[in-house]
Amino acid sequence: MSKIFLDNNSTTQLDPEVFDSMIPYFLEKFGNASSTTHYYGWEAETAVDIAREQISGLINCNEKEIIFTSGATESNNISLQNLIYSKKSHLITMSIEHKAILDVCHYLESKNIQTTYIKPNINGLIDLDKLIDSITPETGLISIMHANNEIGVIQPIEQIGKICKKHNILFHVDAAQSYGKATIDVKKMNIDLLSISGHKIYGPKGIGALFINEKVKINPIFFGGSQEKSTRPGTLPVPLIVGFGTASKIAKEKMKQEYENILELKKILIDKIKNEIPDIIINGDIEQGIPGNLNISFPSLNGQSIVTSLNKIAVSSGSACTSSASKPSHVLLDIGLSKQLIQSSIRIGIGRFNTRSEILVAAENIISTVKNKAQL
Amino acid sequence: MSKIFLDNNSTTQLDPEVFDSMIPYFLEKFGNASSTTHYYGWEAETAVDIAREQISGLINCNEKEIIFTSGATESNNISLQNLIYSKKSHLITMSIEHKAILDVCHYLESKNIQTTYIKPNINGLIDLDKLIDSITPETGLISIMHANNEIGVIQPIEQIGKICKKHNILFHVDAAQSYGKATIDVKKMNIDLLSISGHKIYGPKGIGALFINEKVKINPIFFGGSQEKSTRPGTLPVPLIVGFGTASKIAKEKMKQEYENILELKKILIDKIKNEIPDIIINGDIEQGIPGNLNISFPSLNGQSIVTSLNKIAVSSGSACTSSASKPSHVLLDIGLSKQLIQSSIRIGIGRFNTRSEILVAAENIISTVKNKAQL
Repeated sequence: MSKIFLDNNSTTQLDPEVFDSMIPYFLEKFGNASSTTHYYGWEAETAVDIAREQISGLINCNEKEIIFTSGATESNNISLQNLIYSKKSHLITMSIEHKAILDVCHYLESKNIQTTYIKPNINGLIDLDKLIDSITPETGLISIMHANNEIGVIQPIEQIGKICKKHNILFHVDAAQSYGKATIDVKKMNIDLLSISGHKIYGPKGIGALFINEKVKINPIFFGGSQEKSTRPGTLPVPLIVGFGTASKIAKEKMKQEYENILELKKILIDKIKNEIPDIIINGDIEQGIPGNLNISFPSLNGQSIVTSLNKIAVSSGSACTSSASKPSHVLLDIGLSKQLIQSSIRIGIGRFNTRSEILVAAENIISTVKNKAQL
Repeated sequence: MSKIFLDNNSTTQLDPEVFDSMIPYFLEKFGNASSTTHYYGWEAETAVDIAREQISGLINCNEKEIIFTSGATESNNISLQNLIYSKKSHLITMSIEHKAILDVCHYLESKNIQTTYIKPNINGLIDLDKLIDSITPETGLISIMHANNEIGVIQPIEQIGKICKKHNILFHVDAAQSYGKATIDVKKMNIDLLSISGHKIYGPKGIGALFINEKVKINPIFFGGSQEKSTRPGTLPVPLIVGFGTASKIAKEKMKQEYENILELKKILIDKIKNEIPDIIINGDIEQGIPGNLNISFPSLNGQSIVTSLNKIAVSSGSACTSSASKPSHVLLDIGLSKQLIQSSIRIGIGRFNTRSEILVAAENIISTVKNKAQL
């Protein structure tokens, strides 16, 4: 019941400060931000504008380049489906992207848009030579996730941005896992489109945003109402937008210190486990990653799963969005793990609210469970 | 600043009971409903299931026939865009629909799907003979809104449903303005697809749903993740869903009594105004409508607008979703009003939290403002 929450890649606990900022917009300032005839509408619109600034401040863009969506899945869809309107018919992405990219690519194939899925190196990183080799005159979009949702690996976005710029190809980045946790500078990184999400950074669920470079014209995927410059119609969910803004403001203030704190917790956890179970495999490049993510395989378990046996911590075996599918993780497969080893892997997501003592409990729980199951 | 809120068609104040029901899902029960490996996920999923039952209970469907979306705009888009996958290439709707229908129709025209826009009678109601005459062998969908967002008129949905059934045509209803306010029975009314929204019924913004008759297969408009049977992917916004469920439960309990209360307030308002300004025109059929909506034109104003001159009440001139467009209302145009008369019209939306004394203040404010401007 009251397990320690260590699944911060799937979602995060709302920051109490975020919640406090939302309350007035739920209770008193409940206007429709598109209502132009009275103060209820104006105060809602002002709140939305402030949130837009808070978000743009974290990725170095103009606030007018932010449109609000229901989440990163929708932002990814708007970005990729725009290719249907392009004269180009080729898209490059990685095989270890989230389903919210891969499933859109499969849909685009039915629209005669071909996708090249670049496999990562064994550490989860992209091979830039492979990327360059995949480019054709038909390539209209390169979409690469910033931090991977299963193994936390951070791709060399700035270098990829340079390649995109050189070849005059639109560059989309799914930053759902990295926004607010790793530095993002859309100008410096030459990013044209960036998908972000509220609930991964201690903000509310049901709100995300898409950065669209002001020089780029993007077509909507749904229609009706002139909200968000008609790129994303529908009544703006003002309390969620306010919460997303606050979460972004907090992330900006805390990012550096939090990065250190969480990395420290991860190191403690790895050291403790390794000390007792030396043959663990840490999946994904250990240097190039978001600090909170730790994906470990236990060869000594011989294919046994321990995810649900851990009675003191809540962790996962992979992405929540695919967890009902119960197939082996495509990410772990593509970095070379056997199905048996994938079965004996767990994804730990350490977040803002985890403490050192919780990490010690987690280490103990993992060690004893693995030893018990593996009969070490 | 503290004007009386009488714009309940654009959005509504969150019911405090709805807010209370959401709090635990913001603060403690923050799991991802798709996380299948721990209790945080399970309790979120359970909460979603309860909300699904609460909503289905208000429209007489099975809870499995409800999928959650970001709002009625998205639900409308899913319903109408599905025609792209159909063998049929013709759609019938009304000219006075919300932009979230009309703009999708315009998009579909670019996909070679033709739309017939039926104009209403002078009272705002559909002429069923015109509807029948518009049906062709190519008609794949009829989409008619239940209650109009500007004039409140309720269309004869049950009779339209019979026509659809007889001709074997899918029937979509945009019920954003009527859900929770007027009786909806999808079985009895032969509705295949129904769009509803949380923030119009004292629930949160950013959440809506689509009822899909279990016999009907609908294609998604965006992709990624297996949530909502893959018809609508993306992390479920659990607190919003819980709030939408609670708002639906309250609406079910209160609907009958609230209908009477609000209708009584509207009658008082009309009587008071008519007593002082006898030549007002009430737009839309006065018998066939949702109780809270009152759209009045003041011929004595000779084209002057009073919307922003009303210093004690917050009302609007039409839909919030088109208010930035500042064009004359297409709804009022289509029921035969002149542009001048439209300019001198206001939309009043009376809601759950309006009191009799507020209505008396509103009447006084409207009367004195009109008299002053019209120099009566």
